[in-house]
Amino acid sequence: MTAPRIGVTLGDPGGVGPEVVLKALAREGVLGEASAVVFGNRRVVSREAAALGFRSRLKSWRREKSGPRGLFLAEIPDTAADVVRGRPDGENGRASFLFFEAAVAAAREGLLDAVVTAPVSKAAWRLAGLPWRGHTEYLEHLYPGAIMTFWSERLRVALLSHHLPLCEAVARIREDILLDFFRALARCTGRISGGPGEFLVAGLNPHAGEGGLLGDEEEREIRPAVEKARAEGIPVSGPYPPDTVFLKALGRPEVMAVALYHDQGLIPFKLGSFETGVNATLGLPFVRTSPDHGTAYEVAGRGAADASSMVEALRLARRFIASSS
Amino acid sequence: MTAPRIGVTLGDPGGVGPEVVLKALAREGVLGEASAVVFGNRRVVSREAAALGFRSRLKSWRREKSGPRGLFLAEIPDTAADVVRGRPDGENGRASFLFFEAAVAAAREGLLDAVVTAPVSKAAWRLAGLPWRGHTEYLEHLYPGAIMTFWSERLRVALLSHHLPLCEAVARIREDILLDFFRALARCTGRISGGPGEFLVAGLNPHAGEGGLLGDEEEREIRPAVEKARAEGIPVSGPYPPDTVFLKALGRPEVMAVALYHDQGLIPFKLGSFETGVNATLGLPFVRTSPDHGTAYEVAGRGAADASSMVEALRLARRFIASSS
Repeated sequence: MTAPRIGVTLGDPGGVGPEVVLKALAREGVLGEASAVVFGNRRVVSREAAALGFRSRLKSWRREKSGPRGLFLAEIPDTAADVVRGRPDGENGRASFLFFEAAVAAAREGLLDAVVTAPVSKAAWRLAGLPWRGHTEYLEHLYPGAIMTFWSERLRVALLSHHLPLCEAVARIREDILLDFFRALARCTGRISGGPGEFLVAGLNPHAGEGGLLGDEEEREIRPAVEKARAEGIPVSGPYPPDTVFLKALGRPEVMAVALYHDQGLIPFKLGSFETGVNATLGLPFVRTSPDHGTAYEVAGRGAADASSMVEALRLARRFIASSS
Repeated sequence: MTAPRIGVTLGDPGGVGPEVVLKALAREGVLGEASAVVFGNRRVVSREAAALGFRSRLKSWRREKSGPRGLFLAEIPDTAADVVRGRPDGENGRASFLFFEAAVAAAREGLLDAVVTAPVSKAAWRLAGLPWRGHTEYLEHLYPGAIMTFWSERLRVALLSHHLPLCEAVARIREDILLDFFRALARCTGRISGGPGEFLVAGLNPHAGEGGLLGDEEEREIRPAVEKARAEGIPVSGPYPPDTVFLKALGRPEVMAVALYHDQGLIPFKLGSFETGVNATLGLPFVRTSPDHGTAYEVAGRGAADASSMVEALRLARRFIASSS
């Protein structure tokens, strides 16, 4: 194998993205044998590096399949407007989308093994008139089977659905959709060495419906899907009571909890893993990870942002690349 | 004030209830100045005490408003069948209900300041043909405005609704119901010294609906209720994104999070407070607390049950009594 190459997007120029990217890349050993290509704008990088007292060492990237190892910049043209800090801004939204779009395009062409994305603002993307709510929605548009997962030392969670109103998320809890989801999840995680080999599925209702007394989705949709998946050899079990399934998964690297809607998975994940949590999109032909925090506008520009989650996102990307090669 | 008197029910005789009651009452200082009256059956108590190597010191209780301090037993007749261990059993269900019913009746008569309940089995209550799902449902039948809350050192949570299918719980998220709930919650907790003086309300949808993009319950029902409550001087705010509101409340004793459905509150509560969590029913004319665990049939009879949560339930009951007197 050649040395892996990780694309890293700067995220929203008005948020903490550029800061956590530079801090993480400066961390000893974070890249291992890999090269990094920052997708962004040199003016933004230079300003951030100066504010942090870093020397910017990014060479211009040449779009080719192989090449020397190192830290590179893929300059995205027409993204150098005056940067507004600390609030959603349409120009920043547009720039952060262009960084991301270019990184994804390079990964699709095989020029990158992974894309690690710094946070963007959904509000800024809206101000920019973009039709995607965020990174994941754009990726799902390209790859409809993409799966949103969350990883930390303590807990791993996959989401059946994510950015949907709760009522719409509930309407998606159907046997056929669940069975397809379990198959895709087993396929994607099966490639990751030391990745989860057991899936614990949460119920929807209190106490997982308590045998039908507190709701029937468990017996009607979830249990049949779990049983069919098991019959196919997929190591999935449940439905378990939602208020204890995450405790069952905690601290067990071989286990991934399956949450049926956004907050069912993200409430426990954020509570247990706030600073080192990583978001990973599975089911793509390349690796994609991201820190589990937002633009943190209120902190941006002060040099005080915590890069731990970005560091973990880079590490997880390397681990996934190593497994797939 | 006279010395407070706490009724303690044995719970399901086939579960860990009798064991955690005896262990907790044997703990130095757990009762302070209070007396305890165990509602149960002497045969069950004696057998459990013998198994644990304790000397049973319970005197028979005389039903009167005042009397000497100490540890007493209120014998509930006709509950001494052969005890089945380790699984739901109708006789045990009936006995555990009779213990509880008698303790509640004594509290309603003013003979007790608090009722602390050991765990019962919902399945056993069903086998016994009882129309109540559990303790809280029985109390709600007597006192329709009762509020289910959870307390630990790290987190305090109130539930808008609890044992309902998720879809029914969502249908209860209405401005008028929320406003009444905020009023009742402020009234009940206002009496507790050092109790929560600030309520953080979770949204229903991902990111609290993100301004209507991900669901409209926040703008249509929750925000108007919060604003009306604030106009009445109730210190409530929100709706906050469900996946971060519990982090905001963590470690702040003056704050209580308001969850809109069972698992929204119990997922974070159990994750953060598993062994010392206490369930407290507010809005009753007496104090009621309970450990936050079930009958744990799989552990029953081995002497290995952890009484920490029962100890905390007794402590919280004392604190509530002290505040209300």
